[in-house]
Amino acid sequence: MQITILGGGGFLGRKLAARLAKDGTLGGRPITGLTLFDLAAPKPLPAPFPLRCLGGDVADPAALAAAIPPGTGVVFHLAAVVSAAAEADYDLGMKVNIHGTLAVLQACRALGTKPRVVFTSSVASFGGGQEAVVPDDGRQVPTNSYGAQKAIGELLLQDASRKGFLDAVNIRLPTVMVRPGRPNKAASSFVSAIIREPLLGLSTDCPVPPEFAVWICSPRSTVEWFLHAATMDTAPLGLDRGINPPGRSATVAKLLEALEAVAGRTARDKVGFAFDKEVFDIVVGWPGSFEAKRARRLGFPEQEPLADLVRAFIEDDLEATKADRGL
Amino acid sequence: MQITILGGGGFLGRKLAARLAKDGTLGGRPITGLTLFDLAAPKPLPAPFPLRCLGGDVADPAALAAAIPPGTGVVFHLAAVVSAAAEADYDLGMKVNIHGTLAVLQACRALGTKPRVVFTSSVASFGGGQEAVVPDDGRQVPTNSYGAQKAIGELLLQDASRKGFLDAVNIRLPTVMVRPGRPNKAASSFVSAIIREPLLGLSTDCPVPPEFAVWICSPRSTVEWFLHAATMDTAPLGLDRGINPPGRSATVAKLLEALEAVAGRTARDKVGFAFDKEVFDIVVGWPGSFEAKRARRLGFPEQEPLADLVRAFIEDDLEATKADRGL
Repeated sequence: MQITILGGGGFLGRKLAARLAKDGTLGGRPITGLTLFDLAAPKPLPAPFPLRCLGGDVADPAALAAAIPPGTGVVFHLAAVVSAAAEADYDLGMKVNIHGTLAVLQACRALGTKPRVVFTSSVASFGGGQEAVVPDDGRQVPTNSYGAQKAIGELLLQDASRKGFLDAVNIRLPTVMVRPGRPNKAASSFVSAIIREPLLGLSTDCPVPPEFAVWICSPRSTVEWFLHAATMDTAPLGLDRGINPPGRSATVAKLLEALEAVAGRTARDKVGFAFDKEVFDIVVGWPGSFEAKRARRLGFPEQEPLADLVRAFIEDDLEATKADRGL
Repeated sequence: MQITILGGGGFLGRKLAARLAKDGTLGGRPITGLTLFDLAAPKPLPAPFPLRCLGGDVADPAALAAAIPPGTGVVFHLAAVVSAAAEADYDLGMKVNIHGTLAVLQACRALGTKPRVVFTSSVASFGGGQEAVVPDDGRQVPTNSYGAQKAIGELLLQDASRKGFLDAVNIRLPTVMVRPGRPNKAASSFVSAIIREPLLGLSTDCPVPPEFAVWICSPRSTVEWFLHAATMDTAPLGLDRGINPPGRSATVAKLLEALEAVAGRTARDKVGFAFDKEVFDIVVGWPGSFEAKRARRLGFPEQEPLADLVRAFIEDDLEATKADRGL
């Protein structure tokens, strides 16, 4: 089976690629090739199968045709301009998140072999705010351009699935934490920063109050969800290709408790609070919780407890993050 | 106030244009110019203000820039490839319904004056089928490409409203009946045909059974809704720019009763039943009814009774339809 990861140079793309390389198989079938595609060609990684690392624009049909060659069985479409960046630069968000997804649709359709497409939509495609517990048939009324663009991408791939051009599973990712690296342009960047920065020995300010609730998931769970979405029977989904996976609702206060439980009071005390209206105005519209019953029924696995999520970052990413940041 | 009607050569576009020409004003303000835009330049009509009739492709930015000149206060975006046509020709539907609406968005944004945009979305953007009574926060899970493309258009214009590029009201039109002219490529074409054809003295076959329920509205109500949407205060809409207007749920049997009440048994007997799977498979997914509470609260007027709807066709469109069809 040939696999392509669009956005293969990103945090989740690389974790997924490393997992595929470790397993060598997907759904019990040997992987015969992996293409990692991103704006800049991703760095190679050791793999037991041929690996291609391509750079290009996801909205460019020729680049995508190279990235999704005949014989591709699964496309992970993780390429996106994230929330605060899409809000700050509307045209860039439209180009990557809308025209990019249109190009992915056409590239997959051109294969004529109905590849599985695992698309990362987002909690940001929902409104409702802090008080919401979104049911599985909850309506997407986005409060930001990124969310609107993700909801549109879902509709495009869902209809293309109905037409038989491809076979999509649209996973509406919670806020993935703990992210390695540096704070980024995602409005939700702080959710990782309040754990990561203290573990690096650095101080950080949280832009929202302690009682603020976020719908989160771990990178480990996210990769499990990707693998499940890539191999599950899609017949039970029917027309509805959107999945609200079983994340976890956590307040900032609870996250800091977990940090303290794992890394002690000194780490906890590295986090201050400094209200940031620009960030708050984006994230305050996102729902604090989801029911996620359908995803559980469909076999998407649960989150680990919060303290394990902190430990997972220490095990998987702390050293590399220190090295990357020269700490 | 300058006004543009995209799809100004179509059935609803011409009814709207005639009404604007008759009134000479919109929301109490004098109309200073009207542009009718369609694939082929619409035929002129008598009007007390300057009228431009332009032909062009709605997905062509240059054509749209001409159709939506600086100073445009209201754009009615009715241009679309309809349901069965968008299902039969996916690429054409995508071009007009997606890329067309993207071009409308950019043309309106380029004005820098936040024009009101009245966009015709559709009942076809919902699934749920015959048994459904769609609540105002009902989720759009389209069962056809036309519906998916309309739901996407709504998301685009809704987010552009939030961004302050324009000020959209997205009206999800029921099946508009009675349409003049000939049967067309809309899967719902039969809903008008079972009234119109008998009134023209012609026989017709209904492709769905008598107990089949449709969510309908009259052309007169539709024009009233357009005018209301063009002039209403949009502040109470908040982020949610989608309107489920107060149509009426009617079975085929009830429609035929109304036909008989107005035009007698002879007219009623012109309608036979011949099941058409292709049409049925599209329309069976559309909901039979909506709650439409929010639209009523927002001042969108109610439908006339079914018999009045038949009479309205006789008054407004029967003679012209006869002439057009050489009857």
